[in-house]
Amino acid sequence: MKIAVFNENQVGVVEGNNVIDISSVVDWNNQDSQASLVKLMGDFDTLKPKIEASLDSCPAYSVEEVALRAPVQNPSKIVAAPINYILHKEEMNTALTVDRLGFFLKSPSSIIGPNDTVLLPFKDRRVDHEAEIAFVIGKEAKDVKAEDAADYIFGFIALMDITVRGKEDRPWRKSFDTFTPIGPWIVTGDEVENPNQLQMNLWVNDELRQSANTSDLIYDCYKFLEAASSVMTLLPGDIVTTGTPEGVAPIIQGDTVRINIERIGEFSVQVDYKPGI
Amino acid sequence: MKIAVFNENQVGVVEGNNVIDISSVVDWNNQDSQASLVKLMGDFDTLKPKIEASLDSCPAYSVEEVALRAPVQNPSKIVAAPINYILHKEEMNTALTVDRLGFFLKSPSSIIGPNDTVLLPFKDRRVDHEAEIAFVIGKEAKDVKAEDAADYIFGFIALMDITVRGKEDRPWRKSFDTFTPIGPWIVTGDEVENPNQLQMNLWVNDELRQSANTSDLIYDCYKFLEAASSVMTLLPGDIVTTGTPEGVAPIIQGDTVRINIERIGEFSVQVDYKPGI
Repeated sequence: MKIAVFNENQVGVVEGNNVIDISSVVDWNNQDSQASLVKLMGDFDTLKPKIEASLDSCPAYSVEEVALRAPVQNPSKIVAAPINYILHKEEMNTALTVDRLGFFLKSPSSIIGPNDTVLLPFKDRRVDHEAEIAFVIGKEAKDVKAEDAADYIFGFIALMDITVRGKEDRPWRKSFDTFTPIGPWIVTGDEVENPNQLQMNLWVNDELRQSANTSDLIYDCYKFLEAASSVMTLLPGDIVTTGTPEGVAPIIQGDTVRINIERIGEFSVQVDYKPGI
Repeated sequence: MKIAVFNENQVGVVEGNNVIDISSVVDWNNQDSQASLVKLMGDFDTLKPKIEASLDSCPAYSVEEVALRAPVQNPSKIVAAPINYILHKEEMNTALTVDRLGFFLKSPSSIIGPNDTVLLPFKDRRVDHEAEIAFVIGKEAKDVKAEDAADYIFGFIALMDITVRGKEDRPWRKSFDTFTPIGPWIVTGDEVENPNQLQMNLWVNDELRQSANTSDLIYDCYKFLEAASSVMTLLPGDIVTTGTPEGVAPIIQGDTVRINIERIGEFSVQVDYKPGI
């Protein structure tokens, strides 16, 4: 199932080219979409047949005529893997070893939706795109083993980890407001099947910049969930993002950046300067 | 005013040796203390006289007989300054320059209260104490200048930034569950007066390990708020912590770690191993 947030933060199921508004079916509070999402995920097993039975009678809109919003808006954290593809590791010329992979955190305030604009905060610093597959935690996860990880993942999203290049700590370079575009919707785990074998592409103005398969991840989705949950408690609604492959390159004012991940979907954002800089 | 969370997550005002339960006065929901705190801070100007008028009639307990809880439990982020005291900078042998101070993030899931226990996740890695003065954001802050920063700070807390030493990114080394003890309560800005001239001490088993004055901060509280809010939107209830002075040293199983900050207060936590390691 594809679960989208759209227009005035209503919740919808995407079927083909339609978004079907299920807000009333799942008792969604559009003033607090994060709490509503956590509740939806917690009750999903019982809600799913109810949602499916109601699709024919709920209001439907063409995907093109709605404004898609960030499908996760206020996670308690965004956990991110650094340097998690072999070729990107070579590109970054890093001495990082796999047992020292660790993670970093991005500020939840950096999230924007799949129709929004990335705002560059500087005129004299390089800012890069990074295409990533990310997932949404469905239930509290602490010390979860890779073989059980799928049970703790509600669904998958495409994520751009926008990054200022430089020597500052990653959370600073990656937490500017607008630096985490996510979308286009959450695709539940059953529909994705194997997240560790998906093609992922990113274009800037129709020029292909990143093209890789998630099978090249050093720590795949499940192994990274194990690593993160061995450190800290992951909460329902948290976002975990797995790192970017080779091909990171600068974005500049006026660019359109588009990401596509197999089985998940596609979205694009614009790039502009932050007002007043 | 000193605002404490205690026992079953009730809210209280600390006066002398008493905690006065004001939960009913401020319509506090102990099932969601973070949302209640954000509401309390938003309405504080009108609530303050109401609270003061009610102190004689509310239930009072001795501070010793209550269990103090973390005064902030689920911030949307914990923003932290690296290497922000001159002598600690020399101790860490870092080439960091002030204009590259940046910040890092700690996971909110690492918060524990002032009566809790730090759990060491490894038997073969060094874990250090770091004493810090931190503050709680009172209203949304974006691109706030240092001279206006006091208006955006609701109050101050003492914070221990527990840290695994090593080469991993700081968020990993500092986000283990139990790695952010905070307390003993929030002291509102009017009562602290000047946060940039406070004595701060940390002891391990009564041995003084860190002793410094916040006047030695490279980026003081207000300047660091300016720096952080120039990157990202700080939300009510967020915690901003300013970095630690010289004297960081290891903690081991069985230690008692005590922090005292002038005008704010004192608390101590125990140190043990994480079960099962």
